[in-house]
Amino acid sequence: RSGKMAKLTQLINSEVFQAYATYATIVLLKMMLMSLITAYFRITRKAFVNPEDTASFGKGDSAKKYLKTDPDVERVRRGHLNDLENIVPFVGIGLLYALSGPELSTALLHFRIFAGARILHTFAYLIPLPQPSRGLSWAVGYAVTFSMAYNVLKMVLFL
Amino acid sequence: RSGKMAKLTQLINSEVFQAYATYATIVLLKMMLMSLITAYFRITRKAFVNPEDTASFGKGDSAKKYLKTDPDVERVRRGHLNDLENIVPFVGIGLLYALSGPELSTALLHFRIFAGARILHTFAYLIPLPQPSRGLSWAVGYAVTFSMAYNVLKMVLFL
Amino acid sequence: RSGKMAKLTQLINSEVFQAYATYATIVLLKMMLMSLITAYFRITRKAFVNPEDTASFGKGDSAKKYLKTDPDVERVRRGHLNDLENIVPFVGIGLLYALSGPELSTALLHFRIFAGARILHTFAYLIPLPQPSRGLSWAVGYAVTFSMAYNVLKMVLFL
Repeated sequence: RSGKMAKLTQLINSEVFQAYATYATIVLLKMMLMSLITAYFRITRKAFVNPEDTASFGKGDSAKKYLKTDPDVERVRRGHLNDLENIVPFVGIGLLYALSGPELSTALLHFRIFAGARILHTFAYLIPLPQPSRGLSWAVGYAVTFSMAYNVLKMVLFL
Repeated sequence: RSGKMAKLTQLINSEVFQAYATYATIVLLKMMLMSLITAYFRITRKAFVNPEDTASFGKGDSAKKYLKTDPDVERVRRGHLNDLENIVPFVGIGLLYALSGPELSTALLHFRIFAGARILHTFAYLIPLPQPSRGLSWAVGYAVTFSMAYNVLKMVLFL
Repeated sequence: RSGKMAKLTQLINSEVFQAYATYATIVLLKMMLMSLITAYFRITRKAFVNPEDTASFGKGDSAKKYLKTDPDVERVRRGHLNDLENIVPFVGIGLLYALSGPELSTALLHFRIFAGARILHTFAYLIPLPQPSRGLSWAVGYAVTFSMAYNVLKMVLFL
């Protein structure tokens, strides 16, 4: 049993893998934060989508008026979906990239730029900042993921 | 070749990793089930979104009336999106957590509570159960993922 | 340090894992492509959702008319969400399947059929092709992921 455990933890002892684990966890936590921001705006804007969520406001029309869309809620939800569309590829391709044996400094550069770009993207979306802030921060994260994908395919291509 | 295979299967021989593989597969299958439930409601409620999906009902206005939204379909779709938002972080952070060498009993506790909470969440969303059923089951799954993320960062933080 | 690196790269030296890495990267890149197609249709159809994105068209009503939904944009977005719903389970369950020590030929069969089905699904959705093209290509990818999940659970079930 302890022999198996030793094997298992060898992976996590690699510095590149530790860096990947750190940044993948950070961007996934950032994505999870969007749920809390959505809940905050739904409650403060009194804008719900499920009838059972408005039951505490009474019955009938008095509760029904809280079943509405709100621009701030919809904005956070768009940011959340954009996170899913971009953080999922980073987490998946980034794992394979970390396992493909890159230089630590190169790997850190990829992970740090991606995390920074996605945090900027969230601020640009939620404040909102004038364009091209959101577009550029999206494009930087996209380019980082593409660069990792290129390195993975260069290393392991097996069709 | 068989030497490589042996190395490869060492990972899957760890009990913690086996538990992770089991529960990650279960929650991903549960998420996939939402596609079938959506299809079921689209067909029984005759509520489609793509014109090519209604071609079998005839042409013109006779088919067009089936291009509509239906409250049951939309409810399943919201549940599916909520799964994506919560099961993706569990699968990603849970993998890193399983590799960080936790106690088997602690790891099983995390995985079992998460899977149970997400199954409850699905019932709470689809029946629907009165609040706070859905809210609480969501929060429990969220807290489990957060706890795994805290343990990963405590073990590997490498910024 | 180099000893750790050697351990780390043993995983990526397995042919099954190389095949997984190749096909997971390909389908994640295909999913990322949907973002570019959405951007292309938003710009050519002048159909935006965020007010800050229309600022270059002037102020007030002259810009506001570009805040609209467009059928082509919505179609690409549905295809993108369908990718998330199906490619996420493939990437997660496929990783566990690759680690569970399948025959290389069986694994390649799974990965190739899934990738082919999802590429067909994208063409069927975007052109669009008449049904059941989209439905069948979706079902084939779904069945492949289900088959991998069955093999993972058969190998590692640890509840």
